[in-house]
Amino acid sequence: MGKQNIFDNPEFFKGYIQLRETGNSYNEVLEQPAIHSLLPASLEGLEILDLGCGAGHFAKYCVNKGANRVEGVDLSENMLRLANRLNSHPQIVYKQIAVEDVHFTEDSFDLVVSSLVFHYIQDYKSLLKKVHSWLKPGGSLVFSCEHPVATARKEQGWIMDGKANKLYWPVDDYGDETERQFHWFVDGVKKYHRKVSTLINELLDTGFRIRRVLEPEPTLETLERRVDLVEAIRRPTFIVIRAAKD
Amino acid sequence: MGKQNIFDNPEFFKGYIQLRETGNSYNEVLEQPAIHSLLPASLEGLEILDLGCGAGHFAKYCVNKGANRVEGVDLSENMLRLANRLNSHPQIVYKQIAVEDVHFTEDSFDLVVSSLVFHYIQDYKSLLKKVHSWLKPGGSLVFSCEHPVATARKEQGWIMDGKANKLYWPVDDYGDETERQFHWFVDGVKKYHRKVSTLINELLDTGFRIRRVLEPEPTLETLERRVDLVEAIRRPTFIVIRAAKD
Repeated sequence: MGKQNIFDNPEFFKGYIQLRETGNSYNEVLEQPAIHSLLPASLEGLEILDLGCGAGHFAKYCVNKGANRVEGVDLSENMLRLANRLNSHPQIVYKQIAVEDVHFTEDSFDLVVSSLVFHYIQDYKSLLKKVHSWLKPGGSLVFSCEHPVATARKEQGWIMDGKANKLYWPVDDYGDETERQFHWFVDGVKKYHRKVSTLINELLDTGFRIRRVLEPEPTLETLERRVDLVEAIRRPTFIVIRAAKD
Repeated sequence: MGKQNIFDNPEFFKGYIQLRETGNSYNEVLEQPAIHSLLPASLEGLEILDLGCGAGHFAKYCVNKGANRVEGVDLSENMLRLANRLNSHPQIVYKQIAVEDVHFTEDSFDLVVSSLVFHYIQDYKSLLKKVHSWLKPGGSLVFSCEHPVATARKEQGWIMDGKANKLYWPVDDYGDETERQFHWFVDGVKKYHRKVSTLINELLDTGFRIRRVLEPEPTLETLERRVDLVEAIRRPTFIVIRAAKD
C-alpha cells in the first residue's frame, strides 16, 4: 500500500503553497473556522496530536494557547521543512511518517486533530481504532474531510451552462465507496469516497460518541469579500466532526 | 401554521395507495428494511409511539412482536380509516391529530418510530424536544426522512440526456434550509429541507445520543428484481437515524 505523498511533488507543492498563501483558500475561510469552533474551550495543559500537520501552523497555535505538548505527523518532507523553519517550538515534535504508519502509546492525548487528511486514508476503520486507543478517556477527535457530496461522482466539478455559469453540483455513485482520482494541480490525486453514514457509523463502532457534525458555510462577512464562496452554500464542501472517547 | 394533510386529498390518496400496494415502492424495499434494522432486538413488553402511523401496518407489526401498547398518530382521516379496518387491535390506539399537536405525558414510551414524516415537519427542534420528553430514559427514537441530497434543489429530479438516461442527480441550495414544494401525485406538496448536520446536531442539542445513521441501498436480491433501484446507490434517497435518550 503506497501512501500518497503528493506534497513532495514539486508542481503540486508550488500550487498548494501559492493557494494557501492567499489566506483566502477554502481551508482558511471555511474549514479552519469549523475546526476551531469544535476545539475544547481551553487548550491549556493539553497533549495534542495533529495528524497531517503540514507546515505546523496549527501545532504552533496550540502551544500558543497553552498546550503542554503537540506531536505533528506528516509524510511530506517539504511540509515538515516548512514546519521546522516557521513553526518550531520546544513543545512541538514533528515526525516525518505516514499517518497510517505512526504509533503512539495508549492514552497519550487529550485531543487528536486532523485537517483534510482522512479522505486520503484508505483504511478509515483502522485509523479510527488507533486514534481511539491513543486518546485518553474523555479525549476528543476533531477532523475534517471533503464532503461525500463533493467526492461522490468520479468526474469532479460543477455542471456549467454555455456561459460559464454553474448550474448545479452533480452527484453520482454515492454508494460506491472506493478510490477517486482527481486533478488538483497535478493528475491522479487519490481520494477515498465514503458515505456520511460510513463516516459516522465507523466512529460509533470504534467506541466514539458523536458530539458535533458541521457542514461549514461562509459567514456573511466572508461572502462580501468573496462572493464566489456562495458555492459552499449551494453544495456542501467539507464535513467536520467532533467525536469523544467516553 | 396549517398542517399539511395531503393524504386526505383524493387524488393524492389514490396514487399513494396504488404505489404502496405494489409492495415495491421505495418505502417497501429501501426505507422499511432500514427502519426495521434499527429497532430493538425485541419489542416484547414495549410501549411504542408511531408518529405518522398511516394505515397502521407498523403498529400491528409491533403488537404481533409482543409490544405492550402502540399509539398511532396520523392527521389523515383516510389513513386512519384504513388503519381501523386493516390493523385494529386492543393494544393499539389510533389518534387522528397532527404530529405537531399531539401530547403525551413524560416517560411514556420505550420507542418512538416515525417513517418518512419528519421532512413534512416545519419545527423539527420542537418535535424533538417533545419526543425526548415522552421517551423513558434509555428509550430510542428511530426515524427516516428524505435525504438532504434529495431535497436540496428546488426543482426535484434527475438530469436526463436526450435519450431518457439519468445523467446525475443535481444538488443546489443545500444550505438553504427552507420549505420546498414538489409535485407528488398532486402539486404543491410541501417539505422542509434540512442539512445532514442539522438533523444530527438538533438531536444532540436535545439530549439524544446518536446510535446509527443509515443511507439505505437496495440489496443485490432487490436489484435483480428492480434494476431501476440502482438510482438509490447513485444518490442517497433516505436517511434513517437511531438516537437514544441517555
